[in-house]
Amino acid sequence: MICSNPCFTVGIFLFLSVPNPSIMTDFKVTILGNGSAVPTGHQNPSSQIVKMADMQLMIDCGEGTQMQMIKYSVKHRNLNHIFISHLHGDHYFGIFGLISTFHLFGRDTPLNIYAPAELKELIEHQLRISKTTLRFPLNFHPLEEVGNMPLFVHKNFTATIFPLFHRIPTWGIKISMKDEELRIDKGFVESFNPTIEQILKIKKGEDFTSEKGIVFKNEEITLPPKPALSYAYCSDTAFNESLIQHLKNANLLYHEATFDNTMEEMAIDKQHSTSEQAARLAKQSKVGRLLLGHYSARFEDLSALLAQAQTIFPNTLLSEEGKSYEIGS
Amino acid sequence: MICSNPCFTVGIFLFLSVPNPSIMTDFKVTILGNGSAVPTGHQNPSSQIVKMADMQLMIDCGEGTQMQMIKYSVKHRNLNHIFISHLHGDHYFGIFGLISTFHLFGRDTPLNIYAPAELKELIEHQLRISKTTLRFPLNFHPLEEVGNMPLFVHKNFTATIFPLFHRIPTWGIKISMKDEELRIDKGFVESFNPTIEQILKIKKGEDFTSEKGIVFKNEEITLPPKPALSYAYCSDTAFNESLIQHLKNANLLYHEATFDNTMEEMAIDKQHSTSEQAARLAKQSKVGRLLLGHYSARFEDLSALLAQAQTIFPNTLLSEEGKSYEIGS
Repeated sequence: MICSNPCFTVGIFLFLSVPNPSIMTDFKVTILGNGSAVPTGHQNPSSQIVKMADMQLMIDCGEGTQMQMIKYSVKHRNLNHIFISHLHGDHYFGIFGLISTFHLFGRDTPLNIYAPAELKELIEHQLRISKTTLRFPLNFHPLEEVGNMPLFVHKNFTATIFPLFHRIPTWGIKISMKDEELRIDKGFVESFNPTIEQILKIKKGEDFTSEKGIVFKNEEITLPPKPALSYAYCSDTAFNESLIQHLKNANLLYHEATFDNTMEEMAIDKQHSTSEQAARLAKQSKVGRLLLGHYSARFEDLSALLAQAQTIFPNTLLSEEGKSYEIGS
Repeated sequence: MICSNPCFTVGIFLFLSVPNPSIMTDFKVTILGNGSAVPTGHQNPSSQIVKMADMQLMIDCGEGTQMQMIKYSVKHRNLNHIFISHLHGDHYFGIFGLISTFHLFGRDTPLNIYAPAELKELIEHQLRISKTTLRFPLNFHPLEEVGNMPLFVHKNFTATIFPLFHRIPTWGIKISMKDEELRIDKGFVESFNPTIEQILKIKKGEDFTSEKGIVFKNEEITLPPKPALSYAYCSDTAFNESLIQHLKNANLLYHEATFDNTMEEMAIDKQHSTSEQAARLAKQSKVGRLLLGHYSARFEDLSALLAQAQTIFPNTLLSEEGKSYEIGS
């Protein structure tokens, strides 16, 4: 007998008790620093951690990042990938201390650094003068050579980079979750209580046969995979519409808002963005939410930046240090 | 008439209203960081500011030092000298960010860095890859070439360096106040109310003639200069009695106490000191007070370090981040 009941609805909570990382997909970003070139008493320079299921990617590593990791309980475990967008100090001065701490803690798992090629020489220079031979393999991936290739191989995630528009070579990054699993109908699960093994088979496209011999065709008890979630990061960059192709439909976009609307000329001169420009790009790229950051030290109060952006793109937030943002919310 | 009254006593408060920096001599150290190689949530890596009248000297500049300067209100003004004891990262990783911030704030006064020669190449390498031409002169003084010469020229202070005993070339530093001024008897001042000009002449050795024509010979109205105050800094080093010659009679000694007494073997192996060794050196050097620092991240509670040191040298203190210590107290 073939059962077809189209009224089943999907409940993601069903999967929470299933001990399979590819099902319990965690995808969020935690802000460790969102200031710009000059630190303030309340803003650390750029760094954030993107949590992707069982993996962590650090994006940028300004001075003090390792202290911020302690402050916000970011563990070293599963942090095997660091992306450095460009070689202005507020985006990489913390890498030396972090590498040193990994070494002193006896790390032996490889660390992958994706950064402009010159950083490799500088790290090697620093290690040489402190007479340090690292206890772990440091795999350096020059961004110039990465091109359009995915940064790393992961069964659920992929990350690609694209050029930004700044005074020195600078890259943005987009991380996408490859959600290729079928979603099982909640009502079906409640009615027939399949085992974990049966759930995994159904999610891979198999039919289901109940204890009474009823055969459920796969397409009748599943919904298509959720659209892939994606997160994009743009810091530092001038406004440029050619970025739309890379940011299109991202669920969450972190974009610099170094200046406010009264400082557009300075933004052009320094090749940074105003909050309104960030919002225009978010709107044109049809992203889900916009997260502002890379605030200039001159702003004591960031509410004007937010208001200016929300005029153009209401779904804008001010990024807050120590706070985590789900990509899919 | 010659007046001789030996019962006059000296009151330093007399000089507080005299607007001459050489008289109002401020000599103290402020701790910005006193942790060791691995930062913790409550200890930043090594850095401190020695205030010497109108001048500031930074000793070591671990990661995050510029943020600590903001936290503890240390101004950039009059900070023209930075001494880096050695090239382990916890003593210099903050120098890149601090130089960058000086540059971005438009500094134009020269900055003097006294450090092992290889740091110059590393700073130049970093500036090159971020395409930065500093707006201010950076005068680099390789410690290898300084030898026994004073580090800098100042009318009231002198600083000399000496080798420590660590895994890589490392230097300690001793800063002495050259107090060559005679001290004027308080009772004399109260009785004869000399003008500021007259006070300055007396302090230089001249006699004084009162309005009634009484001549006071200089030696009768003055006391000899106070013994020169001095501050010494030893981090990082193994215990070695040959340091006594450099530390002798320092009013305040900051000495590393990376380990406690149960870890003497590790101290020897890593070429660091235990708190008891620091205290032995302080006692043998006849210093005034001992300030412990460079604490290992493994110690949540530092009271054992203090107790062990005080058994040998009671006048020991635990250095505290953000706290200032007068050299002469």
